[in-house]
Amino acid sequence: MFEKDVYVQRRQTLLKKMQEAGQKGLMLFVGNVEAPAQYRDNAYKFRQDSSWLYFFGIDEPRFAATIDIESGVETIFADDVEIDDIIWMGPQPSVASVAAGVGVEHSAPYSELFQSVEAARRQGRALHFLPTSRYATAITVGRLAGIDPYETFTAGKKGCPKASEAMVRSVISMRLVKEVVELEELEKAGKYGYEMHTAARKGIRPGVIEQQIVGDMEAVTLAHGWGVSFATILTQHGEIFHCHSHENEVVPGKLMVVDAGFESNSHYASDHTRTYPTGGKFTAKQREIYQIVYECNELAFSLIKPGVAYLDVHQAVCRHMLDRLQSVGLVKGDLDEMLAAGIAGLFMPHGLGHNMGIDVHDMEDYGENLVGYDDDQSRSPLLGLGSLRMARRLVPGNVITDEPGIYFIPALIEQWKADGTDKGFVCYDKLSEYYDFGGIRLEDDVLVTADGAHRIGENRLPIAPDDVEEAMAKDKE
Amino acid sequence: MFEKDVYVQRRQTLLKKMQEAGQKGLMLFVGNVEAPAQYRDNAYKFRQDSSWLYFFGIDEPRFAATIDIESGVETIFADDVEIDDIIWMGPQPSVASVAAGVGVEHSAPYSELFQSVEAARRQGRALHFLPTSRYATAITVGRLAGIDPYETFTAGKKGCPKASEAMVRSVISMRLVKEVVELEELEKAGKYGYEMHTAARKGIRPGVIEQQIVGDMEAVTLAHGWGVSFATILTQHGEIFHCHSHENEVVPGKLMVVDAGFESNSHYASDHTRTYPTGGKFTAKQREIYQIVYECNELAFSLIKPGVAYLDVHQAVCRHMLDRLQSVGLVKGDLDEMLAAGIAGLFMPHGLGHNMGIDVHDMEDYGENLVGYDDDQSRSPLLGLGSLRMARRLVPGNVITDEPGIYFIPALIEQWKADGTDKGFVCYDKLSEYYDFGGIRLEDDVLVTADGAHRIGENRLPIAPDDVEEAMAKDKE
Repeated sequence: MFEKDVYVQRRQTLLKKMQEAGQKGLMLFVGNVEAPAQYRDNAYKFRQDSSWLYFFGIDEPRFAATIDIESGVETIFADDVEIDDIIWMGPQPSVASVAAGVGVEHSAPYSELFQSVEAARRQGRALHFLPTSRYATAITVGRLAGIDPYETFTAGKKGCPKASEAMVRSVISMRLVKEVVELEELEKAGKYGYEMHTAARKGIRPGVIEQQIVGDMEAVTLAHGWGVSFATILTQHGEIFHCHSHENEVVPGKLMVVDAGFESNSHYASDHTRTYPTGGKFTAKQREIYQIVYECNELAFSLIKPGVAYLDVHQAVCRHMLDRLQSVGLVKGDLDEMLAAGIAGLFMPHGLGHNMGIDVHDMEDYGENLVGYDDDQSRSPLLGLGSLRMARRLVPGNVITDEPGIYFIPALIEQWKADGTDKGFVCYDKLSEYYDFGGIRLEDDVLVTADGAHRIGENRLPIAPDDVEEAMAKDKE
Repeated sequence: MFEKDVYVQRRQTLLKKMQEAGQKGLMLFVGNVEAPAQYRDNAYKFRQDSSWLYFFGIDEPRFAATIDIESGVETIFADDVEIDDIIWMGPQPSVASVAAGVGVEHSAPYSELFQSVEAARRQGRALHFLPTSRYATAITVGRLAGIDPYETFTAGKKGCPKASEAMVRSVISMRLVKEVVELEELEKAGKYGYEMHTAARKGIRPGVIEQQIVGDMEAVTLAHGWGVSFATILTQHGEIFHCHSHENEVVPGKLMVVDAGFESNSHYASDHTRTYPTGGKFTAKQREIYQIVYECNELAFSLIKPGVAYLDVHQAVCRHMLDRLQSVGLVKGDLDEMLAAGIAGLFMPHGLGHNMGIDVHDMEDYGENLVGYDDDQSRSPLLGLGSLRMARRLVPGNVITDEPGIYFIPALIEQWKADGTDKGFVCYDKLSEYYDFGGIRLEDDVLVTADGAHRIGENRLPIAPDDVEEAMAKDKE
């Protein structure tokens, strides 16, 4: 948690934005409640709502707040603990004192939230809320706004029609540009993120069960922070993007994709990916493809600076990738034509990166297009480019990922071949030699600075192919 | 996952119970969906619904099923994956083949669940469902049953009025008595549960941050299974029951309560507690209280056998505890009078144990009284005894915890003193010397056998005070 003034300042900025946009009524903030895993009292580890953390900082379940746009009055709603709770949770500070600690003058029991919002709605006042993906919050907001719980969710990439677009846009405009105090937290997350990745690299040896490595990585995150910032991907099937099974034994000759992140106790994330040869040495075939992905990662980083649209960086990376894949003999044709036809999407069917902050995909619940696209940008229908979460023109303080990858996905290749999606640019004969190759992804977290870019986290994880092999050789000593 | 016949047999038994109880209509089973933590695609680790696992075994999100009580027809509802999903999740077996794998002949897309249930309700047929605590399931079941989502929750200890009591009772009667295949899983959970506790004991040294130890424990659970079966309690404030903060440094002279469990990949739990002197040696004062808790744990175990009500075991433990606390000088009076007045609750304001299985508190969502009390037993209003989750007369196959504890909770002591709740039995002068003592709890998992009891898990964790000190001395070598 930051100093009180950080939260006071943020809420004042938000209020001013809403007032300047001509908005009236109540802004609603619903913090998270516990999320039961098995039964009510056996909940998942509590994770607070990210915008609640941003504006109110209180990392406890069952808090809500309203801000009256006209009067500026802020009220926090939560219940004080009773003696029974004290036995279970120990003595707790009062809600009033917790509220005062983040600069909020008024507080009331949780149930009064419903009365207060209902009274405002009866007066015809607008209720501004942010979309959610938490089912419990959906029920609460649905009730407060008089709509179906599902109408509080973001539908697809375009956002949530019933949520307050003015409030969503105001929040996005603030959270997209990281403050100095946030950058310190992100650096910390980056540092321990590297530490967890180092534990992974050291654990990758033929004969080990993947689950064992995941356990070692998670121990690092719990020793220094809240835990993992998302479910760890550690797989010898890198061509399957979200492979969360870790039951396989590490076998020699494969590529291990490790995509994992750390979440600090104040809930800032890291998100890095490295790809390792399971036996410690790349084969010639692996190294050839790895080198291309490495170049793409470096190319993207070299292009990041204020004013550049990340969409253009994505396209520059795709162009370089196609050029190099042509030299390997996997595609053939004019580079610009291939780029326009979206051929890169066969090899990298995902975007180059996304915003990162308190959420790994920052604010994704608010609608990918609102978060990641400038008003004059539109989303491509092409595979890969169409999945790009961050396309905006960069500004100092943006924190984004740089994560190119090359994958050989047999089902997708077969589909393109059958559909003719490749328009004759793909060399299927050569490609057939890569059906058991897997995939490679290399990801860094990057801060846009005043005149360029900075990679977050001390002591960058080895990434150049020689450096990776050298590090793995040292690990074995 | 077990053999197909295990699930077929269980469903047949359930169907027969419902038919014999004169029930008609549809039984509804709603498996869990992903539970978003930050945003929709960043979900908590998937945990399937426990009764779904018990009757259908399929450990994937977004499955549901109905069983027609009159015809016996079973139908699984889930969606086959599309090409986009294959990129993200890899090739997946069809729903039909997954259903066949657990002996279910009929399958249909998920959306047909709503049509199918609606058609049945239009015909006036009854819909039998189990209570839930998952908000997403509450929305779905609420919609299917035409009730408010909150009406699908268990309200307090008495259960959920809108759920099917016949179905709840039938499921409870089955899950309370563990099958041989389940006991094998519970033994495995017990074994790794001990391993995680051994990691904890080895980590407890002055100067270490608690979080570090929790990380090491979690690594054990992830290396061998699904993870922790509940949020680890590791605290030098054992008098706070659910203390999940791990930011403190281990300081010498304190008692560290470690209450933690392992969950196997097939989701069976362990739940053990040990209490360690942080410096490796008990003080005389600590040892005196520890010895009492140890005796209570052993006493409970010695009394467990078929036909004995666990409520009576709880009371026998309280009686012994009061007797021994009298010798320490903390209480004074007639044992039976003190027992009747609930004086033990000041020191142990929780129950002696609970059922355990796929849930740590098995089936707690179905209502504590239905799960843990025979029809002729009623719940006490006394502190401690009133929190007893398992009171039933024991039968072979029950798996219960044996977890006595003694705590010194300043806020509670002050309250009793002010209210006169202690009726003159408590020696407050002497008690004032224990305000910074903390708490002690010692917990084993116990199977009720044909003629007695068996502690689950190989190589019981050291528990006698001398054995604990000896183990901690060896850890340091």
